[in-house]
Amino acid sequence: MTTTPSAVVVVTGTEVLGGWVSDRNGPWLAQRLGAIGVRHLSTVVVGDRPGDLVLALEQARDRGVQLIVTSGGLGPTEDDLTAAVVAEFQGRPLALDEALEGRIWTIIERLSRRWPGVDPDALRAANRKQALVPDGADVLEPVGTAPGLVVPPPDGRPGPTVLVLPGPPRELQPMWEAAVERPSLRAAIAGAEVLDERLTRMFGIPEATLAQTMIRAREQGIAVDDLEITTCAHRGELEVVTRARPSLVPDAEAFERFLDAEHPGTVFSTDGREIEQVVGDALRERGWTVATAESCTGGLVAARLTEHGGSSAFALGGVVAYANEVKEAALGVPAALLAEHGAVSGPVAEAMARGARERLGADVAVATTGIAGPGGGTEEKPVGTVFVSIAGPDGATLTRRYRVPGERRDVRERTVTGALHLLRRALAGERDDA
Amino acid sequence: MTTTPSAVVVVTGTEVLGGWVSDRNGPWLAQRLGAIGVRHLSTVVVGDRPGDLVLALEQARDRGVQLIVTSGGLGPTEDDLTAAVVAEFQGRPLALDEALEGRIWTIIERLSRRWPGVDPDALRAANRKQALVPDGADVLEPVGTAPGLVVPPPDGRPGPTVLVLPGPPRELQPMWEAAVERPSLRAAIAGAEVLDERLTRMFGIPEATLAQTMIRAREQGIAVDDLEITTCAHRGELEVVTRARPSLVPDAEAFERFLDAEHPGTVFSTDGREIEQVVGDALRERGWTVATAESCTGGLVAARLTEHGGSSAFALGGVVAYANEVKEAALGVPAALLAEHGAVSGPVAEAMARGARERLGADVAVATTGIAGPGGGTEEKPVGTVFVSIAGPDGATLTRRYRVPGERRDVRERTVTGALHLLRRALAGERDDA
Repeated sequence: MTTTPSAVVVVTGTEVLGGWVSDRNGPWLAQRLGAIGVRHLSTVVVGDRPGDLVLALEQARDRGVQLIVTSGGLGPTEDDLTAAVVAEFQGRPLALDEALEGRIWTIIERLSRRWPGVDPDALRAANRKQALVPDGADVLEPVGTAPGLVVPPPDGRPGPTVLVLPGPPRELQPMWEAAVERPSLRAAIAGAEVLDERLTRMFGIPEATLAQTMIRAREQGIAVDDLEITTCAHRGELEVVTRARPSLVPDAEAFERFLDAEHPGTVFSTDGREIEQVVGDALRERGWTVATAESCTGGLVAARLTEHGGSSAFALGGVVAYANEVKEAALGVPAALLAEHGAVSGPVAEAMARGARERLGADVAVATTGIAGPGGGTEEKPVGTVFVSIAGPDGATLTRRYRVPGERRDVRERTVTGALHLLRRALAGERDDA
Repeated sequence: MTTTPSAVVVVTGTEVLGGWVSDRNGPWLAQRLGAIGVRHLSTVVVGDRPGDLVLALEQARDRGVQLIVTSGGLGPTEDDLTAAVVAEFQGRPLALDEALEGRIWTIIERLSRRWPGVDPDALRAANRKQALVPDGADVLEPVGTAPGLVVPPPDGRPGPTVLVLPGPPRELQPMWEAAVERPSLRAAIAGAEVLDERLTRMFGIPEATLAQTMIRAREQGIAVDDLEITTCAHRGELEVVTRARPSLVPDAEAFERFLDAEHPGTVFSTDGREIEQVVGDALRERGWTVATAESCTGGLVAARLTEHGGSSAFALGGVVAYANEVKEAALGVPAALLAEHGAVSGPVAEAMARGARERLGADVAVATTGIAGPGGGTEEKPVGTVFVSIAGPDGATLTRRYRVPGERRDVRERTVTGALHLLRRALAGERDDA
């Protein structure tokens, strides 16, 4: 008999618990645990108080998990105490690993050149702490200055293995990849069965309609109740995640096809790509370049288009035309057009897109103008009123008015998403009637 | 004797646990709990499985907290089961609140006009569920379609009160504000003593040096050990949060002053403002306008400058000059300069800033050019090499070269922060020697 191993993630850090920084590790680890077939039961965020961390570890052990993953608390300062707490929890006393201390010192010496004012003795004392390792733990080499640890349960006793990882995501992520190759970790999660996982991204349908879709899929004989299906509205898009044991992969595939068939035109990605990647690939395929002209989104459309490496193949740049004078001077929007229709209007969005396309010499351009709030709304054009326009070759345009819900931040974010989807449709050949 | 009431936050949602969406409610609730003097012990994220939610509630009760706040699981679909689970947990059976059902239906009818294809009967059935209320619970009026609930422990028995809130932040936040006014909630957290909380934002010092600062503050007689002090590196800045009971406010104030005295020039905010707000206010004060010229940051500097309402008072806009042709055509950077120094160089950054300032008619302009990676690095200019330049009136410039750590996303984000701080220094009068 094999049982699926399970895990709890414990994120430490008063600054995370207190809401001063958002936790990027819990979500990332959740995805990685799923990918190696470990059932992720919960993520617990605790502050830098030893008692709270102990309690979180004990509660996870009480649930009978095979693995506990901690993030954070490995730094050089007094409030970084994860290694000591985990050592105590697993009954494995800390001891100085002198070879490790030497390797960490090499890293610190190099880094300290950037901060010439810092006292090297203070650094040395503060960082010796990072070379203290629980007896019998498997050490993961530092990516920053802190090593990670795979700490097994006390010898001869059952209990979870604790994987101790540093807090900064750019240290945690490569260290996780190293950890999953270690026999010490593989032993803890023996029996893990890798689940088939697929992600369908959709745009243009409300989440509520998916309840009906599930019912119809069940009627078609698809084993939706045996699949783990999660739907989530995100930045104006809908993400549908399906997880399946190996025997249910045909049903997962059938459900994926069913979504597309039931809601034609709404599925834009089944391979993990985000909309800016889908658009980027469509531009690459045509050998086209793109330019942007942004008012309310303030540069976020250009930023999304250049978010991934290699975007210089298609992204030329753009104009952030927040002020009307910039719309006129940098994009050639006629003052009369602004006066007649207002800056937030279809004709101005269209003129902005045409201007960016011509002035930057791009094949296609995307423009946004709208009222992001909190001020600036009117009865006719309330906060959330947004116009997006795409200008392509031969004078073709595609312009739409949207009413975007939410506060300033949501309006800007969803307008970016809407603009990229309209660009996708234009690249697929859609255009306004001439 | 008064004891500080404590709370656990339970965030539900398979999509949050699974890492498909980031949790905005845990951090937000943490801040609000702190503000009303409730000690926040931990945040637990669980999936939409009733057993996992029950366990999280039981573990919180075992810790002896006075309040449990849940977010999510109040929607109309089958996997939304928080109200039912909490009803069972508190021994208060669910019953239909017909008046509430009518009020919810009014909201749904209005919303459903946006989605003309949806079957009204299906909506009615799915949403009747949202009017099921635990016996004796205090109902919080819906902001979206879901009501919130204050559910006291079973009659005559000790135990935590559960505050049940919806998942979408724009519903949760106003509902929290309504909840804290309710006698049902105030009774649960009687004895809460509002803590003094202050946030000092610093730039330009490594987090490690603060350990020494704390020791020196202690030597000066400041009661740092009785204050709750949290430090956190964030986007290249350092945030120091200090919480103090009323009797320790003088020490909190002294510590705040001590930070500034020990690390002159690094403290840029003690009133909650982010760097873009500090810069925005400095611009407003002078009556100046700002323009941007961005290469590697791809529009993110402009986006940060326009993140808050009212930024049109100083932000004119800018040029995203990703391609060299755009640097030449839209910013007037000489082709010879690009050929001689390369696009990632001080002279080009300076020419970009001057070009943006002149072409957009701004008082001051900020330019970025750099290698964000993952490709494009060389021995002389590795990934993370970035130049920022500020151009002001009278030909004054301030240009700096940085070596920014991290991957593409980090490099872009930290370059934005660095650019805003250089702009702040320029606005304070700093300039390169002519």
